[in-house]
Amino acid sequence: MDMTKRELCSTGIEELDIQMSGGIPLGSTVLVTGCSGSGKTTLCMQYLFDGAEKGDRSVFFTITEPLFKLTKNLESFSFYKKNLIESGMVNIIDLRIISERLGLDTEKYTVDDAGALLDILKDIANELEVKRLVIDSITALCYRLQTREMIRDFIFKLGTSLAVMNCTTLLTSEVPPQTYKFSQYEIEEFISDGIIFVGDIERRGDLIRTLQVVKMRGTDHTRTKFAMHISADRGIELMPLLKSSEIDSVLTEKVQSSLRSWDIPKEKVML
Amino acid sequence: MDMTKRELCSTGIEELDIQMSGGIPLGSTVLVTGCSGSGKTTLCMQYLFDGAEKGDRSVFFTITEPLFKLTKNLESFSFYKKNLIESGMVNIIDLRIISERLGLDTEKYTVDDAGALLDILKDIANELEVKRLVIDSITALCYRLQTREMIRDFIFKLGTSLAVMNCTTLLTSEVPPQTYKFSQYEIEEFISDGIIFVGDIERRGDLIRTLQVVKMRGTDHTRTKFAMHISADRGIELMPLLKSSEIDSVLTEKVQSSLRSWDIPKEKVML
Amino acid sequence: MDMTKRELCSTGIEELDIQMSGGIPLGSTVLVTGCSGSGKTTLCMQYLFDGAEKGDRSVFFTITEPLFKLTKNLESFSFYKKNLIESGMVNIIDLRIISERLGLDTEKYTVDDAGALLDILKDIANELEVKRLVIDSITALCYRLQTREMIRDFIFKLGTSLAVMNCTTLLTSEVPPQTYKFSQYEIEEFISDGIIFVGDIERRGDLIRTLQVVKMRGTDHTRTKFAMHISADRGIELMPLLKSSEIDSVLTEKVQSSLRSWDIPKEKVML
Amino acid sequence: MDMTKRELCSTGIEELDIQMSGGIPLGSTVLVTGCSGSGKTTLCMQYLFDGAEKGDRSVFFTITEPLFKLTKNLESFSFYKKNLIESGMVNIIDLRIISERLGLDTEKYTVDDAGALLDILKDIANELEVKRLVIDSITALCYRLQTREMIRDFIFKLGTSLAVMNCTTLLTSEVPPQTYKFSQYEIEEFISDGIIFVGDIERRGDLIRTLQVVKMRGTDHTRTKFAMHISADRGIELMPLLKSSEIDSVLTEKVQSSLRSWDIPKEKVML
Amino acid sequence: MDMTKRELCSTGIEELDIQMSGGIPLGSTVLVTGCSGSGKTTLCMQYLFDGAEKGDRSVFFTITEPLFKLTKNLESFSFYKKNLIESGMVNIIDLRIISERLGLDTEKYTVDDAGALLDILKDIANELEVKRLVIDSITALCYRLQTREMIRDFIFKLGTSLAVMNCTTLLTSEVPPQTYKFSQYEIEEFISDGIIFVGDIERRGDLIRTLQVVKMRGTDHTRTKFAMHISADRGIELMPLLKSSEIDSVLTEKVQSSLRSWDIPKEKVML
Amino acid sequence: MDMTKRELCSTGIEELDIQMSGGIPLGSTVLVTGCSGSGKTTLCMQYLFDGAEKGDRSVFFTITEPLFKLTKNLESFSFYKKNLIESGMVNIIDLRIISERLGLDTEKYTVDDAGALLDILKDIANELEVKRLVIDSITALCYRLQTREMIRDFIFKLGTSLAVMNCTTLLTSEVPPQTYKFSQYEIEEFISDGIIFVGDIERRGDLIRTLQVVKMRGTDHTRTKFAMHISADRGIELMPLLKSSEIDSVLTEKVQSSLRSWDIPKEKVML
Repeated sequence: MDMTKRELCSTGIEELDIQMSGGIPLGSTVLVTGCSGSGKTTLCMQYLFDGAEKGDRSVFFTITEPLFKLTKNLESFSFYKKNLIESGMVNIIDLRIISERLGLDTEKYTVDDAGALLDILKDIANELEVKRLVIDSITALCYRLQTREMIRDFIFKLGTSLAVMNCTTLLTSEVPPQTYKFSQYEIEEFISDGIIFVGDIERRGDLIRTLQVVKMRGTDHTRTKFAMHISADRGIELMPLLKSSEIDSVLTEKVQSSLRSWDIPKEKVML
Repeated sequence: MDMTKRELCSTGIEELDIQMSGGIPLGSTVLVTGCSGSGKTTLCMQYLFDGAEKGDRSVFFTITEPLFKLTKNLESFSFYKKNLIESGMVNIIDLRIISERLGLDTEKYTVDDAGALLDILKDIANELEVKRLVIDSITALCYRLQTREMIRDFIFKLGTSLAVMNCTTLLTSEVPPQTYKFSQYEIEEFISDGIIFVGDIERRGDLIRTLQVVKMRGTDHTRTKFAMHISADRGIELMPLLKSSEIDSVLTEKVQSSLRSWDIPKEKVML
Repeated sequence: MDMTKRELCSTGIEELDIQMSGGIPLGSTVLVTGCSGSGKTTLCMQYLFDGAEKGDRSVFFTITEPLFKLTKNLESFSFYKKNLIESGMVNIIDLRIISERLGLDTEKYTVDDAGALLDILKDIANELEVKRLVIDSITALCYRLQTREMIRDFIFKLGTSLAVMNCTTLLTSEVPPQTYKFSQYEIEEFISDGIIFVGDIERRGDLIRTLQVVKMRGTDHTRTKFAMHISADRGIELMPLLKSSEIDSVLTEKVQSSLRSWDIPKEKVML
Repeated sequence: MDMTKRELCSTGIEELDIQMSGGIPLGSTVLVTGCSGSGKTTLCMQYLFDGAEKGDRSVFFTITEPLFKLTKNLESFSFYKKNLIESGMVNIIDLRIISERLGLDTEKYTVDDAGALLDILKDIANELEVKRLVIDSITALCYRLQTREMIRDFIFKLGTSLAVMNCTTLLTSEVPPQTYKFSQYEIEEFISDGIIFVGDIERRGDLIRTLQVVKMRGTDHTRTKFAMHISADRGIELMPLLKSSEIDSVLTEKVQSSLRSWDIPKEKVML
Repeated sequence: MDMTKRELCSTGIEELDIQMSGGIPLGSTVLVTGCSGSGKTTLCMQYLFDGAEKGDRSVFFTITEPLFKLTKNLESFSFYKKNLIESGMVNIIDLRIISERLGLDTEKYTVDDAGALLDILKDIANELEVKRLVIDSITALCYRLQTREMIRDFIFKLGTSLAVMNCTTLLTSEVPPQTYKFSQYEIEEFISDGIIFVGDIERRGDLIRTLQVVKMRGTDHTRTKFAMHISADRGIELMPLLKSSEIDSVLTEKVQSSLRSWDIPKEKVML
Repeated sequence: MDMTKRELCSTGIEELDIQMSGGIPLGSTVLVTGCSGSGKTTLCMQYLFDGAEKGDRSVFFTITEPLFKLTKNLESFSFYKKNLIESGMVNIIDLRIISERLGLDTEKYTVDDAGALLDILKDIANELEVKRLVIDSITALCYRLQTREMIRDFIFKLGTSLAVMNCTTLLTSEVPPQTYKFSQYEIEEFISDGIIFVGDIERRGDLIRTLQVVKMRGTDHTRTKFAMHISADRGIELMPLLKSSEIDSVLTEKVQSSLRSWDIPKEKVML
């Protein structure tokens, strides 16, 4: 696709940008879906700090992790720059603290509470003129609503709000492990322009993190599954999954070598 | 079948028309079913712009994506012709805006709301004398109804309405990923004359888009699964899935070569 | 079994009759179960037109497809004889039109509505002295009832009605794709003397239609799964499924040939 | 086990008796579980006629199939002896007719209705001094009760009743196809002393009927799965399932022959 | 583990005791879980009669099987010693008879009924000074309670009661066939110190009984799956499951022999 | 990651600490998830006694196992040091006894009860100045609450409480066997900084215990699956799972040896 017409927002993960022909189209709402421990929060943080380096002010709304823990965990990563926090380029806000200030029950929201929270969220984003926004997680936010109907209404309202805001948003979406669905309520994807799925595959007893761009409207993205590495030095990186050359091919090579010589066949990673 | 008796509506995807012996029978209601990111919206748009080129006026009702985003995403495709929009040959209408004008809650419909919306929809289609109609998506529309019973009633009403309208309709139907069912509520297929399923298969870590005509009343269609490619230049194209020659045959060839020579066996795509 | 004692009703599908030692025992109620697009309606129509040719008057009750569409689709088939419709040998009746005439809501039935409809249905069958009857589909009919309890009651009432009527009945029963169950509510089979399952198997990316007689009381039927072909010329035909000679045997032959010669192994269809 | 201490009731199926070291212990309640079309009714009928030949008076209670159909279907089998019906040795009773006489709704029972029916059932069994009793099916009987709680109570009451009656009882229990559970409500097995499971396995496109004694208190039974054949001449017969000698062994033999000679390997039936 | 510190209760099944380094720790509550027909009742009886031989008085509470049937079935086993019943060393008590005496509905308990029953149960155990106690089955007992909440409360109460009683208890727990869970309500395991799972594996068409100690607090038990044989002579015995040497090894040996000689490979039992 | 910035809490299991680059970050809340019998309780106890040795005072709250049983089972392990209990370094408290003292129903909590219990729990932890805390199990605790909503509220409240407490907490979380999810209610993970999954794999009929660090915020942990051994001498130890060198490689070696010699291939443990 000719993406020159559209402005793109880099993610701070080089290989991921390449997979999407440059980045996320500005103004998109993207679900980052995966189970607990799959690296969603780190991915979002790296995205925000990358933006801040490039001049995009950003805000991260958390609903489960207290600020001090979040920050402590962040400090291990080299992409974390304290000065970007201090200069107000990256803002991390605990929705529970906001809830408290609003006089809301922090563990249980009514429809009105959720509406009030949404308004505050919008106000903050507008006032700060943020370009990048993260809500971590939409699932935990919805858990505070009491009925499925309330949740559905809230998600559609959130979608409407985000659509008119001027920023590129990541919503983390938590699903059970080893489950390939995009969201807890199967409604969240209706308000999203893109879906990035972070999963696991088990290989010889290890859990390998994977990342796949399932959907990204307005980009010519691949849908290849990558191995996703997380390290303190380089944050998140994508690498090709060593593909199984399938049982039969491995077998054949080994049969060859068994006929030819007594070499120990080289280890191959099975997909 | 002798399809000369029936008039057919081409889809704008050559290979798909061939699979259905020429196209969709005029006046049919067709479900286009797939998960988020499977390419349903693009398929429908290509269908409408193709029709417009051939003189069929059309309307696209969206319920999730705002118009400006939809248009921005469309602009990447070469099948998109701005003048067809401007001349009123392709009409894109946001059902939420219509809802607002009707004074309805845009995120939550009562039975009466849904009825009113259906009437407007019919009026628009009649007034514009459209020949091709798309609703994207029937699933998101139904999510705005509060109970399963309301949804069932609405779907049957929609079916009754569409049956007497003079156009060939595509209804996009969203299902969870890796799920082979035709609709969210398993009622939508009762009002459809055809079902086109767009899915995914994972091949060596990539998600390949697939398309299959599952049902098309009044045509002599194949039910072959095709690989579906989306590109800015050519929009949607169907290509044969490189079939696995099954493990055993690959194996045999390799055994052959292992006996004959030490050649590295050529890569084969496994189904 | 010695079927000479019982009179049988041919189905119009020669191979199917053979599988059932001659046909369906007169007076039976048979479920024709399959997913959307599996060919249930065509099978039933072929059964009725075959009967009409042999002098059996028949009636087809539809609840989802409007008459004009149904007829249009039928016209493609060579078994369709317009004169059999005109002479009243095959009667196609839209239950929704009957509902309207009875002043019922066509999309939602009460218990009384369902009872009234059943009575009309019986009256029509008796008045026309039909020998073959089809309801397409019992599933769509039940969807118009509001609770599971109402559905259960209706199905048992229908069974009681059909048992005393003088005709051989096919009830189409819709199940989700790739699901091997006999009915939506798992009650329908209690009122049936026979079950014909029309399914799909995927073979190298194609969906092959299959047919299997699962149950047919009073006949000495096979339970073999057949490939089911639908063509305009010959309607539905059954053909043996080319059986996999299983991986190992294919493998062996290939190993043989690999040892003997370098021939490319012939393609085999895998079950 | 030393079964000489206990009296046993032969089933009329020789191989089945052998599997249970002689038959069903007198006074047992046995579930005959399987899906629609698996041959439960035929097995029960053969059991009753066998008993009648040996002087055991018996009664068959049906709740789904009308008497005239049941009899018509029976007539095909050679084990059916009209004189045993006429002499009152085998009694076939339609529970719906009894319901009618009691002034009950035949499609829907209250707790009291079910109790009344149970009492009649007991009275009939006692009056006729039956030694063998069949209820076909307990599942259909329970479907006439409105709530799960009513069903549970009814099943326990039935168990209490049967335990003190002087006959050996078969209760047919209907489960969905390809489901390995013993009953619809998973309570029926609590009142049973034995479970005979009749199932299907698919072999190269055919559905083969199978039978397995899962449980039979007080006998030293095998739990081998047999192929079950039904023919007019001999009714139900059990035969050993040709076992797969597993892929590898087939493979090996073929490799042997491929090395030794070019013989076409003989067809093997895979389990 | 150094089990010398703890007193152990042998099970009467030698191999099982060995697996648990001597037996069940005194005072434990152990779930014996399996489907209908898996041999739970026999295992518990063998445990009680073994204890009685060693001087442990015991009580068996049954809720589904009437006493006379239970006893008849027991008589086949050589471990059954009539004198141990007569001398009051093994007591078999029908909870339904107790319920009747308490004036309770035997098929349906209220919370108070269940409480009263628990009290009686405790009184009996205390009065008889039993060392071994069995309830067969906790599942059937719970089925008599009307709501999930009542069941949960009852199970916790039962746990509290058993914890302070002076005996080693087996609770049979019934689960559907081919289901690997430990109890019907998934609460029963919270009150248990040990879990013994009796299951089935299908091998070439036979159902083989298996036994596995999943959990046994305070012992150094293995978790190996054994084949469990039941015979009149020796009751329950455990035997090693002939393990599959896996496809590949079988294959290799056969390839060896195929290269070396033309012997027919010996049958191997596949796991 | 550069973990020098953060203080870590060793687990008492050397290999596990290594996997987490030193231990659990101080102040974390960690779910220890597994089925009944997977060793969760032992793991937690070893963690507490290890801490006590190093000077960390700790408290273990139990809700299912009575103290005397818990202690008896502990005594078998060499890591158990009676003096650490006596000196108040390790405190084991039965929540049911606390409930009783508070005048609560020990089997059923209201929202207020749960709140009161939480407060007590916090008070105890603060008063004792504990550094390590265990709740065994959060699942059993939640089972005492009556509705899903109450449970959700309680878990969020617990999370809020733990976040501000000054200790490193393990919450055991019970899931059904052979289920890979992290908690019963799928909410527990929202309040956790880490997840340690203890599972089973079946290998040739044995159940092998496994352990995997799925998530541990703020550490550079591996996600490798280890075999987990429990012995009286050394408590819990992790060992590498002997990895299958996959069927094909085993096969190849065997083919090699079969060509080279007639050696019996050495046993390999299959993953």
